[in-house]
Amino acid sequence: MTAYGGIELGGTKVICAIGSGPGEILAQERFATTTPDETIGRALDFFKRGERVAAVGVAAFGPLDLDPESASYGTVRSTPKRGWQRAPVLALVRAGLDVPVAVDTDVGAAAVGEWRWGAARGVRVAAYVTVGTGIGAGIVVDGHPFHGLGHPEFGHIPAARDPEDELTGVCPVHGDCLEGLASGPAIAARWGRPSEALPADHPAWDLEARYLGRALATLTLTVVPGRIVIGGGVTQGAELYPRIRHEVRASLGGYLDQAPLRGSLEGYIVSPGLGNDSGVLGAIALARRAVGDG
Amino acid sequence: MTAYGGIELGGTKVICAIGSGPGEILAQERFATTTPDETIGRALDFFKRGERVAAVGVAAFGPLDLDPESASYGTVRSTPKRGWQRAPVLALVRAGLDVPVAVDTDVGAAAVGEWRWGAARGVRVAAYVTVGTGIGAGIVVDGHPFHGLGHPEFGHIPAARDPEDELTGVCPVHGDCLEGLASGPAIAARWGRPSEALPADHPAWDLEARYLGRALATLTLTVVPGRIVIGGGVTQGAELYPRIRHEVRASLGGYLDQAPLRGSLEGYIVSPGLGNDSGVLGAIALARRAVGDG
Repeated sequence: MTAYGGIELGGTKVICAIGSGPGEILAQERFATTTPDETIGRALDFFKRGERVAAVGVAAFGPLDLDPESASYGTVRSTPKRGWQRAPVLALVRAGLDVPVAVDTDVGAAAVGEWRWGAARGVRVAAYVTVGTGIGAGIVVDGHPFHGLGHPEFGHIPAARDPEDELTGVCPVHGDCLEGLASGPAIAARWGRPSEALPADHPAWDLEARYLGRALATLTLTVVPGRIVIGGGVTQGAELYPRIRHEVRASLGGYLDQAPLRGSLEGYIVSPGLGNDSGVLGAIALARRAVGDG
Repeated sequence: MTAYGGIELGGTKVICAIGSGPGEILAQERFATTTPDETIGRALDFFKRGERVAAVGVAAFGPLDLDPESASYGTVRSTPKRGWQRAPVLALVRAGLDVPVAVDTDVGAAAVGEWRWGAARGVRVAAYVTVGTGIGAGIVVDGHPFHGLGHPEFGHIPAARDPEDELTGVCPVHGDCLEGLASGPAIAARWGRPSEALPADHPAWDLEARYLGRALATLTLTVVPGRIVIGGGVTQGAELYPRIRHEVRASLGGYLDQAPLRGSLEGYIVSPGLGNDSGVLGAIALARRAVGDG
């Protein structure tokens, strides 16, 4: 087996793995995100200790510069995260390894991972949406992360504040964008408790499903993916999936009639097939793709 | 010069042309849209009378089935337009001509035309948005119309009704989707006059710019196109472009910092370079692409 490396670089923790896919992980390590030099240094140490890898994929928190023509390709763009503003993530990894290194956002990589091995297998155009500390989406087309000028910033689309919602929105840039109204911190700010502490019959969940349902209907009508995989900490609670599907159906009003968009949407809006490993396995998928291995 | 055929099949009128691109049109004809058989028959007669074409492109009103695997590929899906429900547009054109025939939506073709010869030249991922009787968007990637399960249905994204707007929305399916609130018929229903009859200082225009600005910000954050070309009858009035750019800037809040998204957005949100010919020239571009000519 050829081994590949994956780095899931999150805002609070890092997961590094060596392997070739699900069930074929030879080594894995998890540690806290600190400074860019220290964090990437620790990842590099992990790979130096382990089996030799043919390529490495990085699934990093964004926003990232992903314009291949840009001098700062693979660098974090503006971020509130201290010390990471303009951090040259890709350059730091490349400088420490003599193998090809690919990079995308955490959600872009997760979309690729779910497309290759998870819940989006066999679907030409698919989306992966995460709802947690932030909200983000990756779009995968024929196994490639979709980019325009850069990666999608779907968490920041304008959202219609519910008439009964008194929260002004927690996004430091936009206030009441989707992330400002429907992320984990928005739920905690609105109800005074984190989403994990809210019971399944709490009104928080219907409101959350309305925000997410309208957003996924928007994504559906814009990109028309064949499947949407939705994950992240917030989605774990309160049987949220059927409620989201119900709201998407209501927003679409039956307008689209392709097979996946008929009926209950159970095969259209789905949970991740790779569980919490979509990101790091997606990073391995990026590494494999970087050297033409699928 | 190799000649190609283009058919822009609109809901009320058809434009047929023979030529190879802008300034190179040998013949053109325009007639009313009636029944599918009669309308396509007239288009076929036009091509039989004219110079022989190497391929034909069809830019048709939608929604269309554009799944190449589908038995009804190139057929109109559900439409309120009498007689056109399930009309096999592509099959009718193919049956009458012995050359390759390509099909896309009117806006998908217009996006390709603007990408090849118009205001979106040199832009890898671009969007063409029309605001008229309906609202629609085509997305072009490296010269190809972007499709997921089908073509985008961007006109029907959920919209946030302005608190001061009393219109319930004119979309027969969704009521207050984007098209329901911001299309030409929505403006006419709200203000009792068609958009052409509204003076530039009428409050209609600021409201219209708010709806379109939020929608184009959503498109920007989802697809991140390098340029958005916006046309259609409604956009002709009242110096709407600067107002739309202003609203897009307000919705983005400076979050995206790629070059086209900085400053006034004058190079980002632009009028069609091909004027009213984006559709029929886009159809010719589809025809050329169908036989590998560009």
